[in-house]
Amino acid sequence: MESKNVAKIILPEPTLRRLPWYLAYVRLLRSQRVEYVSSTQIAKEINVDASQIAKDLSFLNIKGKTRIGYEVDTLVSELADFLGFSIEHRAFMIGVGSLGSALIQDQGLLQYGLNIVAGFDIDPAVIGRSIRGVPVYSMDKLGMKQKELDTEIGVLAVPVEHAQDATDTMIACGLQAIWNFTPFRIKASSDIVIQNTSIYAHLAVMYNRLDDRHRFLK
Amino acid sequence: MESKNVAKIILPEPTLRRLPWYLAYVRLLRSQRVEYVSSTQIAKEINVDASQIAKDLSFLNIKGKTRIGYEVDTLVSELADFLGFSIEHRAFMIGVGSLGSALIQDQGLLQYGLNIVAGFDIDPAVIGRSIRGVPVYSMDKLGMKQKELDTEIGVLAVPVEHAQDATDTMIACGLQAIWNFTPFRIKASSDIVIQNTSIYAHLAVMYNRLDDRHRFLK
Repeated sequence: MESKNVAKIILPEPTLRRLPWYLAYVRLLRSQRVEYVSSTQIAKEINVDASQIAKDLSFLNIKGKTRIGYEVDTLVSELADFLGFSIEHRAFMIGVGSLGSALIQDQGLLQYGLNIVAGFDIDPAVIGRSIRGVPVYSMDKLGMKQKELDTEIGVLAVPVEHAQDATDTMIACGLQAIWNFTPFRIKASSDIVIQNTSIYAHLAVMYNRLDDRHRFLK
Repeated sequence: MESKNVAKIILPEPTLRRLPWYLAYVRLLRSQRVEYVSSTQIAKEINVDASQIAKDLSFLNIKGKTRIGYEVDTLVSELADFLGFSIEHRAFMIGVGSLGSALIQDQGLLQYGLNIVAGFDIDPAVIGRSIRGVPVYSMDKLGMKQKELDTEIGVLAVPVEHAQDATDTMIACGLQAIWNFTPFRIKASSDIVIQNTSIYAHLAVMYNRLDDRHRFLK
C-alpha cells in the first residue's frame, strides 16, 4: 500500500487542472453543510463526464460509497492536500512592477499554498521598499536570499526583454521551479519546472470569440 | 478579398494562444532593431515547429518574403491588431477583493487592450472607494453603469460561493463576455463568451511537477 505517497505520482496535466474545479465546488457544498456528493452530481455542476470525475478522483486516497457518494469534508481535505494547497511553498517574486506587486497583494495565493516571502527587482525606485510586508531586494541579492530562505519557486513578472536573463539568474541562484507570467517562452534545462501562465494570451481568445459573436448577431 | 475582416474569423484556440508568444518575441526583436525574422528563427526561440508557425501566421494579413522572412515592424502591428490588443475593450471588475483590486492595478492589461473602467462589489467597506482612479460601485448599480459605459466584458473575481450569482447578474445587466478568475465553473447560455483563467489551478500542476522532481532526486 503506497497510498500516503500518492501525491508524488506524476499526474496528467488535464487531471491536475480539473481537480481544483472539484475542490472549489465541494468547498462550496461544505459551506452549505452538504454531507455527501456523488460524481454524477459533481458532473452536473462542473460539466465534466461523471466517469472522468471518478477516474480523476481515483488518484486520491478516497473512496466513494455506493449510492451515497463521497463524504464532502473528507473530499475537501484530501483534494487540498493532494494538490499541495495545504502545504506552504515559499516563493520569490522576480519583477515587482505592476503585475508583480499585484500578485504579492493577492492573498488568494496564500490560500493555495503559495507564500511570496520576498520580491526582487533592478529598479532602485522599488528596491528597499516593502509591499504588504514583503521586502523588495536588489536582483543581486537573489542567491544570498535563496540560501537564507530555502526558496524553490520563482514567480516571473519582468518585462519581456528581461525574461530570459532573469530566468538564467534564478536557476543559477538555485530556484527549481518558475511560474512564468510573462508572454515570453523562457528556456531552461529539463530539470527545471516551468509553468506558463500568460493571462494576456487568454484575452486574445476572449476578444476573438466576442468578435465572432458580433459577426453572427449582425 | 476579405483581408480586412480576417480578425473576425473564429480561430482554433491553440493558435490564439500561440500568437501572443510570437508577438512577445517579435516585440523583443523590434526593441533590438532587428528588421526581418523567419519562421525558422521564431521556431528556434519559441519551441514550436516552423511549419506550425507559418500556418498560424497564415491567418494574418501578412506575407513573408522568401529567404528573408517577415518584416518585424509589420509583424508586430499585424499581430497586435489581429489579437485585438490595439483596440480598447472596456471592462468591469466584478469583485474588488484581493485579486480584483490587484488586477485593477495591473497596467499590463491596458497594454493588451483591456481597460477596466469600474469595479463592483457588495462590501460596504470598498463601495465608494476608488483604486488607481477606478471607482468602485455597489453591485446593484451594474445595470445602470453598463448602459452608461456600454461595457461588454466582466472580469469575475468574487468568492466561489458568489460566482454563479454574480454571473447571472452580469448577464442580466447586458455583459456579453466573462473573464472568470474564480476556480468555479460558472454556467451561462452558449451566446455568452466565457474565458476561464484559474491561476491557482496552475499552482497544482507546478507543485506536482516539483514533488515529482524531488522523488527522482532522492
